[in-house]
Amino acid sequence: MNGGVLQGIKVVDLTSVVVGPVATMFLADYGADVIKVEAPAGDLLRKLGGASRSGQLSPKFLHFNRNKRSIAIDLKSAEGMAALRKLIASADICVSNMRGAAMKRLGLDVDSLFAMNPRLIYCSLVGFGQKGRYAAKPAYDGIIQGVGGLTGIFEAADGKPRFVPMTMADHVVGLIAAKMMLLQIIQREKTGQGGAIEVPMFENMAAFVMSEHMGQLTFDPPRGPPGDQRVLDPGARPIATSDGHICISANTDAQAFAFFRAIGRPELCEDPRFCSVKARYDNVSEYFALREDALRTRTTAEWLEIFDCADVPAGQSHTLETLLTDEHLQDVGLFRVTNHPAEGDILNIRLPNDADDLARPGYSPPPLQGQHSGDILAELGYSDEEIERLRLANVIVAPGRPQDEEKRMPA
Amino acid sequence: MNGGVLQGIKVVDLTSVVVGPVATMFLADYGADVIKVEAPAGDLLRKLGGASRSGQLSPKFLHFNRNKRSIAIDLKSAEGMAALRKLIASADICVSNMRGAAMKRLGLDVDSLFAMNPRLIYCSLVGFGQKGRYAAKPAYDGIIQGVGGLTGIFEAADGKPRFVPMTMADHVVGLIAAKMMLLQIIQREKTGQGGAIEVPMFENMAAFVMSEHMGQLTFDPPRGPPGDQRVLDPGARPIATSDGHICISANTDAQAFAFFRAIGRPELCEDPRFCSVKARYDNVSEYFALREDALRTRTTAEWLEIFDCADVPAGQSHTLETLLTDEHLQDVGLFRVTNHPAEGDILNIRLPNDADDLARPGYSPPPLQGQHSGDILAELGYSDEEIERLRLANVIVAPGRPQDEEKRMPA
Repeated sequence: MNGGVLQGIKVVDLTSVVVGPVATMFLADYGADVIKVEAPAGDLLRKLGGASRSGQLSPKFLHFNRNKRSIAIDLKSAEGMAALRKLIASADICVSNMRGAAMKRLGLDVDSLFAMNPRLIYCSLVGFGQKGRYAAKPAYDGIIQGVGGLTGIFEAADGKPRFVPMTMADHVVGLIAAKMMLLQIIQREKTGQGGAIEVPMFENMAAFVMSEHMGQLTFDPPRGPPGDQRVLDPGARPIATSDGHICISANTDAQAFAFFRAIGRPELCEDPRFCSVKARYDNVSEYFALREDALRTRTTAEWLEIFDCADVPAGQSHTLETLLTDEHLQDVGLFRVTNHPAEGDILNIRLPNDADDLARPGYSPPPLQGQHSGDILAELGYSDEEIERLRLANVIVAPGRPQDEEKRMPA
Repeated sequence: MNGGVLQGIKVVDLTSVVVGPVATMFLADYGADVIKVEAPAGDLLRKLGGASRSGQLSPKFLHFNRNKRSIAIDLKSAEGMAALRKLIASADICVSNMRGAAMKRLGLDVDSLFAMNPRLIYCSLVGFGQKGRYAAKPAYDGIIQGVGGLTGIFEAADGKPRFVPMTMADHVVGLIAAKMMLLQIIQREKTGQGGAIEVPMFENMAAFVMSEHMGQLTFDPPRGPPGDQRVLDPGARPIATSDGHICISANTDAQAFAFFRAIGRPELCEDPRFCSVKARYDNVSEYFALREDALRTRTTAEWLEIFDCADVPAGQSHTLETLLTDEHLQDVGLFRVTNHPAEGDILNIRLPNDADDLARPGYSPPPLQGQHSGDILAELGYSDEEIERLRLANVIVAPGRPQDEEKRMPA
């Protein structure tokens, strides 16, 4: 049990870019042997979202692919497909983010997969459920944010849609896919049978957003408009200080009155515009304006100390830069300098949840493309000679000669 | 196995509002018996985020608490605490979102919990990890969005922080907590032992956001600024049509050229400003401006048909209203009218992932406060007389007399 709770679970990961890799990251972190299957061109994400020293492991790629192994196979060759089939036959889980038609062309439709391996758990990440009319549409995070309602909640708040400036649909659906695979693992323990799961991004995001914001359209007939107006209020924003921004949650009377005293305006506790939850709600623009006037006068650090003493719930609105140096995160060691063989020292993000014995011990650096091609084929019974032949025939990409390795090492 | 994969898992849910209830919803949907423990005042969310017919089940409460049972206990009374202890002793999982000090005051610190029940899985949802300096700080979604970097990515994109207008930190961490509990269930199958998990919202959101946007600060020493600039580009927005907005992902040459032809500007394929990925990147403002000029001339439906035929990846930017009537979602039946005993017909969101045999069959309506108090105590061995005595002594809240029930029923 010292390899993590998912030790012994072998995952053939046919996904790339974000949604699939974050889903399998959650399995790898807890001990699964995640084998990243890459085409000879490599996962697109290796070069997307920012450069790296080696040119092969972008920052995002580094964060989403820790604790995995990589095999690079040319699936257009018959020998490459034969190797992939052997790999799937030996696996517990296969994950893909190709649409059904593409998997079928590879001979990897659900029936064929279960014929190869009846205990297989097959997770199919698709943009749109395969039983609806958008089944064949391509999916990108931006499109799923749009159809799934994420852009719509900004429109409901501000009158104008926008994206969350991160690939939020990919990340949320990746988490959901990981959860579904864990459920299927529990099921297999009980029944001995594998099973297929389809995880459509659109349906999942629509459910995620609408569970919060269906509002009065929940009732049939509707009792009013959609949306939780309290959350959609455009005035509910981080408040500028003299050198940054603070987020405040002062909703109850006790919190609001503590806030008024903390900003040196105790008389507002008695002010008919602000003396109750209802009064503050009815005069919300004035309430927000006075918060903004007050906070402008001191630094974020000064205000946080004042609010801390006064029991006003508050926190810094971190920038990406200040987040990395947050003192609490330093206390708990969330970011740790770790050596990567090809990239040198990098800041790795440790698992945020303390759970003794669940996690994989240690940390395996994110792999170079095809770094484990040879090892993985050897585990399937391929001889050294066969592996070398496949490498020379470009059926697999495997680590180059020692001098190539050296070039990739940091100085 | 016809009760869902988690049938037989009994969850004592001490949480309220959003983060805990969405975590346990994921367990309830797959067959766990989630027992929502409410104070006599009831879960705050019953009345937050919008009114309902009965006044007791706000839209959000309805969506987050399906398939659960409710027991309402006064934990300030010795008999109430005794009942809760019996309940925890009989459970597989206990989830709370109180800080460690508050749990200790109730005699429910980790050691006491395991003394009651060595096979217990205890999941503690906290704002901040209990080993860091913010351990005692209160946590609200808005504060976690601020410290966790979500407001910061808007600042990185636009120069000004803002919230995602939904309780995004609560929802994301709820998913993570569900995943952690599933891992702990798998672990207990192997070892027979329970275990404790701490799920801190701050650390989880910081890891979630920074895995995408640590950017060049990933390298030590840094190679440049944080952030994936492609995702942060403020020009990457849904584009206005004559009657709504569309999201387009036309990144490759093939996609961009298809887009130029679709808008009747085939000459742009040869235009040195737009003829390659690099050219479009270097002239991104002009590229975005011409997209906006073009789309303004037709309706969303017209453009979507044109882009569909032309293989340009595109999707509607739904409003909360149009999302509910999306034709694909109607094909797959994501939203279904279901009768709720106290609220009448409501739009329920079905599970978005097709996975035979995993889900709980059917649907139990979200409970009234204390609706199952009597049943749950009876299962613990309390007699009808004892239950009635506890009800009259206000130790528990249980369904009222038949005429009260009638008043709550829809006309």
